[in-house]
Amino acid sequence: MLDKAALATLFTEARTHNVWLNKPVSDELCQQIYDLAKWGATSANCSPARIVFVKSAAEKEKLVACLSPGNQEKTKAAPVTAIIAMDMEFYEKLPQLFPHADARSWFVGNQPNIDATAFRNGTLQGGYLMLAARALGLDCGPMSGFDADKVNAAFFAGSSLKVNFICNFGYGDAAQLFPRSPRLTFEEACRIV
Amino acid sequence: MLDKAALATLFTEARTHNVWLNKPVSDELCQQIYDLAKWGATSANCSPARIVFVKSAAEKEKLVACLSPGNQEKTKAAPVTAIIAMDMEFYEKLPQLFPHADARSWFVGNQPNIDATAFRNGTLQGGYLMLAARALGLDCGPMSGFDADKVNAAFFAGSSLKVNFICNFGYGDAAQLFPRSPRLTFEEACRIV
Repeated sequence: MLDKAALATLFTEARTHNVWLNKPVSDELCQQIYDLAKWGATSANCSPARIVFVKSAAEKEKLVACLSPGNQEKTKAAPVTAIIAMDMEFYEKLPQLFPHADARSWFVGNQPNIDATAFRNGTLQGGYLMLAARALGLDCGPMSGFDADKVNAAFFAGSSLKVNFICNFGYGDAAQLFPRSPRLTFEEACRIV
Repeated sequence: MLDKAALATLFTEARTHNVWLNKPVSDELCQQIYDLAKWGATSANCSPARIVFVKSAAEKEKLVACLSPGNQEKTKAAPVTAIIAMDMEFYEKLPQLFPHADARSWFVGNQPNIDATAFRNGTLQGGYLMLAARALGLDCGPMSGFDADKVNAAFFAGSSLKVNFICNFGYGDAAQLFPRSPRLTFEEACRIV
C-alpha cells in the first residue's frame, strides 16, 4: 500500500502539463521510465508498444510539423516528447515473450484480433509509461491531436510501426496550470453488482 | 519520486495473478480504486470508462458464462471482477467534463473518432485502475479472453456501454505464480532521437 505522498504524485495531485521548465531529461531517465513500465501487464505478455523518445532539435521539428497547431509550441518546449507507437507485427515476438504456448498462431491472419490487441495493449503500456514517469518525478502532457499519417510517414516509413499517441515528458511549471477539470463520481461511472 | 518499495508494488515486483486468497474486497475499496484512477489523464478529460464491479454469486455466474474456459475458475474465485467498459456516447458528458470548449461537437457524427477515442482513453483508464488497485495493496488479473457480444448482452443491453476488458482484483497467492516472462529490452522497444 502506497503512502499519501506517493498517491498524490501518481494520481490525486498529478496534472497534465502544457508549460515546461527549462530542465533537461537525460537519456538514462528515458530508459528508467521504460524499464519500469515494461513490467506492466499485457495480454499474453504481447508488449506491442514501441517508443521513440524525441529530443534533438531536428527530430523535434519533424514531429512538431505533424501536430495540431495547439500542440506545437508546448511540444517544442518540452525536453522530451515520446511517440508511443504499436508494432502491428508484435506477434512475431511472441515466441520470445510467451514461450510456453504457440501464441503467434492466435494472431497470424486474424487482422481484427491483431488490431484490437495492438491498440488495447499498446495503450495500456502508454498508461504505464505515464505513471512510471510520474513515479520518477516527471510530469506528463499526453496528446492525440496530430496527423497520424504524417507521423507514420516521418518516423515509421517502411516499418510495421504505427503511432498511437504522443506524450511530452519533463518538469512542468505548476504556476501555469489551469484549475482542474471535474471527474465523474463513482456513482456516475461505476456500479457494484 | 517514489521509493523503491512503491516502485516494486506498482511495477518491478507486481505480477498478474491467477490464484486468489479467500480474502474479501470491500465496496469501499472498489470506490477507493476508482477515486484514484479517475484523476488519470484522458483526451479532453473525456473519461469514457465505465466500470461494473462484479461481486455477488449470481452476477459472477452470469459473467463467468461469457469467459473463455481458461478464465472461468480463477474469475469464480476472485473476490471482485471488474468489467471495464466504455460509454460509446461519452461525448454527451463533455459539457460537464470539459466546459471551456464545445468538445461534444468534435465527436457527434464522427464515428471513427468516437470509436478510437473511447477505446484509447477507456483503455488508459483501465491501466490507471490496475495501478491504483496495486497502489492500494491489491493484485490484478486482467483478461481479454471472453465473448464480448455475450458480455454486452448480459450486462449492457439497451445501453451505450460496451465491454473493453475484464480484470480480477483481490489478494493473489504469490506461492502459485509462474516464473516471470521476459520483457523487451529498452534497445528492442525504444530509441532516442
